[in-house]
Amino acid sequence: MEYKFSDRVSNLKPSAIREIFKYAADPEVISLSAGNPSPDAFPAKEIAEISARVLAENPISVLQYSVTEGYTPLRDHLKEYMKKNHNTGSDNDDILITTGAQQIMDLCTKALVNEGEVVICEAPSFIGSLNTFRSYNAKLVGVTVDSDGMNTVELEEKLKANPNAKLIYTIPNFQNPSGVTMSLEKRRKVYELARKYGVLIIEDNPYGDLRYSGEFLPNIKSMDTDGIVIYAGSFSKVISPGMRVAYAIAPKPVFQKLVVCKQGNDVHTNIWSQVVCDEFITKYNFDEHLQRLREIYSQKANFCMRLLDKYCAPAITYNRIDGGLFIWCDLPKDVDMPAFCKTAVLNKVCVVPGNAFLTDEAEECHSFRINFSTPTDEQLEKGIKILGELANK
Amino acid sequence: MEYKFSDRVSNLKPSAIREIFKYAADPEVISLSAGNPSPDAFPAKEIAEISARVLAENPISVLQYSVTEGYTPLRDHLKEYMKKNHNTGSDNDDILITTGAQQIMDLCTKALVNEGEVVICEAPSFIGSLNTFRSYNAKLVGVTVDSDGMNTVELEEKLKANPNAKLIYTIPNFQNPSGVTMSLEKRRKVYELARKYGVLIIEDNPYGDLRYSGEFLPNIKSMDTDGIVIYAGSFSKVISPGMRVAYAIAPKPVFQKLVVCKQGNDVHTNIWSQVVCDEFITKYNFDEHLQRLREIYSQKANFCMRLLDKYCAPAITYNRIDGGLFIWCDLPKDVDMPAFCKTAVLNKVCVVPGNAFLTDEAEECHSFRINFSTPTDEQLEKGIKILGELANK
Repeated sequence: MEYKFSDRVSNLKPSAIREIFKYAADPEVISLSAGNPSPDAFPAKEIAEISARVLAENPISVLQYSVTEGYTPLRDHLKEYMKKNHNTGSDNDDILITTGAQQIMDLCTKALVNEGEVVICEAPSFIGSLNTFRSYNAKLVGVTVDSDGMNTVELEEKLKANPNAKLIYTIPNFQNPSGVTMSLEKRRKVYELARKYGVLIIEDNPYGDLRYSGEFLPNIKSMDTDGIVIYAGSFSKVISPGMRVAYAIAPKPVFQKLVVCKQGNDVHTNIWSQVVCDEFITKYNFDEHLQRLREIYSQKANFCMRLLDKYCAPAITYNRIDGGLFIWCDLPKDVDMPAFCKTAVLNKVCVVPGNAFLTDEAEECHSFRINFSTPTDEQLEKGIKILGELANK
Repeated sequence: MEYKFSDRVSNLKPSAIREIFKYAADPEVISLSAGNPSPDAFPAKEIAEISARVLAENPISVLQYSVTEGYTPLRDHLKEYMKKNHNTGSDNDDILITTGAQQIMDLCTKALVNEGEVVICEAPSFIGSLNTFRSYNAKLVGVTVDSDGMNTVELEEKLKANPNAKLIYTIPNFQNPSGVTMSLEKRRKVYELARKYGVLIIEDNPYGDLRYSGEFLPNIKSMDTDGIVIYAGSFSKVISPGMRVAYAIAPKPVFQKLVVCKQGNDVHTNIWSQVVCDEFITKYNFDEHLQRLREIYSQKANFCMRLLDKYCAPAITYNRIDGGLFIWCDLPKDVDMPAFCKTAVLNKVCVVPGNAFLTDEAEECHSFRINFSTPTDEQLEKGIKILGELANK
């Protein structure tokens, strides 16, 4: 049988990160390439408690079919929580529970982007989302990420040059992979440009709660008086990624289309895990839990930055981060970055080559991404020392 | 903001069944319109046991990110189980764990069907799958379902007339909604035609294990020496639909594309529920559990058919069933079926109008679907009595 795949996926490749994970699976290799929460970060005891209680008291409620929109109490609680804590969401919006935030990207592309139409992305950006856009044959147009977020002059140029742009995709807080946080001024500017050019924004915010220094900045969605922002929130980094529970806050007409698309995608999100998330954020001290996570990651991040300063300067430079799980490292312009990453793997340290995060992977790139949340402190020290030795040779 | 949705979804409507469910939500209405497993059918005690054990012994394994392909032990056990029990799957195939079988339809359409290309479906067929195909702008072509399955003469005509057909979608066992099981002869013929015309088959088999009379028939996938059948199995009807765990057995080149598509769709299926399903099928007596389900549904189905004979003859006729959850009822040709269903709802009984399951909902139809697994015996008797009174008036 000669298989004829659809045009949209025939050029789709497994993500470059997956290839790297093959090396990372070698137990002798120190992996700084993941994006997993720290094993210490899971509220495992509380999850076990809630689950046991729900399965004893009302098992059918978590084992039977449920509704596509999501578990109603969870939607109501999130609505209230996001409004109160982040001024995010209004009466013109509704909340959809999804199977991870990845599904939000999938449903939004399906509902909003025809083949050949443009999605404007930060360059670099989260490879998972880029691949989702690609899987619908959308055209990706990248905008440079400055140290205070998306370059808005370039954004306007790209919007002008691409009248068929449908979405602007941004991760404003502790962006994956650059670690950059978008300034308030730029958040306002991106919103204004989206409105001016009639393009919707997807604001992807998986790391927003993991700020361990500096001031919280308002979500772009909190400025959304025109119904042009789709906000993507997730429990993956603050409760558990294995459960695959996330949520979209979207203008009602968009929400309705997303619901129809989700119905044909997976009917509804695992209801057992939805109930567990709901009980955890309402019946336990969620704020205290977030505070604990911030302490864990703050410690890890600061330790990692001290190691970079100690072992990697001057060859490797990086932007200091205020939150999230990633640090973006730059090599001197005369260093062949892919060759450097390959040598690192041969020396048993695995990082992600920066070009994997570009809208065009063939573009020249001198950066790589490291993650500090998954490895132990000992692994971090050993791994970063090796990177420093290689870079300074 | 004037929202411009993509061509593929701009004409997509919420499923007609959802509209009906709004009536069914009225506690005074007896719903014969659902497709839910019986509340007695869930192995709730065992699920609670497994879950408590796993969360105590190795919580990180079920809370952390996992791999797109699915939990390896579950894939291995299913491979062995399906080979041993159903001669289904070969070394040319691989197994992908999905978020419900609905996701298999989504991933297959995405990977295999360009906009405007044809999916050949049984008419009537499962509305959820039809809507998934529609959501990629596929063209649906229906083939009549005879009492022994798809009309294969018509199937060949449609294959000839549609050289851009990419998939044949069939539910060979206790088809939803018709209740029909495809004969062995027709299974062979459908396979042969698919091979002859170079079209892949999706064999959707959510009810196969729920046979309570007659002999098990071989899966079409068991005949697949050419790598042209994608088999969709599911735990929704035999363990729990709320967990959303299903599996595709697909030829390796197709499997690889499905994995890439799933990666961009939801990264992986809820790993906690995957582990629970795996432990349940391997460490408990799964065959005994299936036997118990067959007894529950056999009793329900026979009770329901006795009620139809008692209250609904001669106006309502139906095909006797050997398994599954649905009975397809026919009204006399001079009865306005949609008006009948509306009157039934006003009389507090909710059924699904048959045209909802057609590739073209505007086609004339004199049938409706009833489900007997969700209502209590008392509700069934009361509901069917009302249907009989209305039909025989």
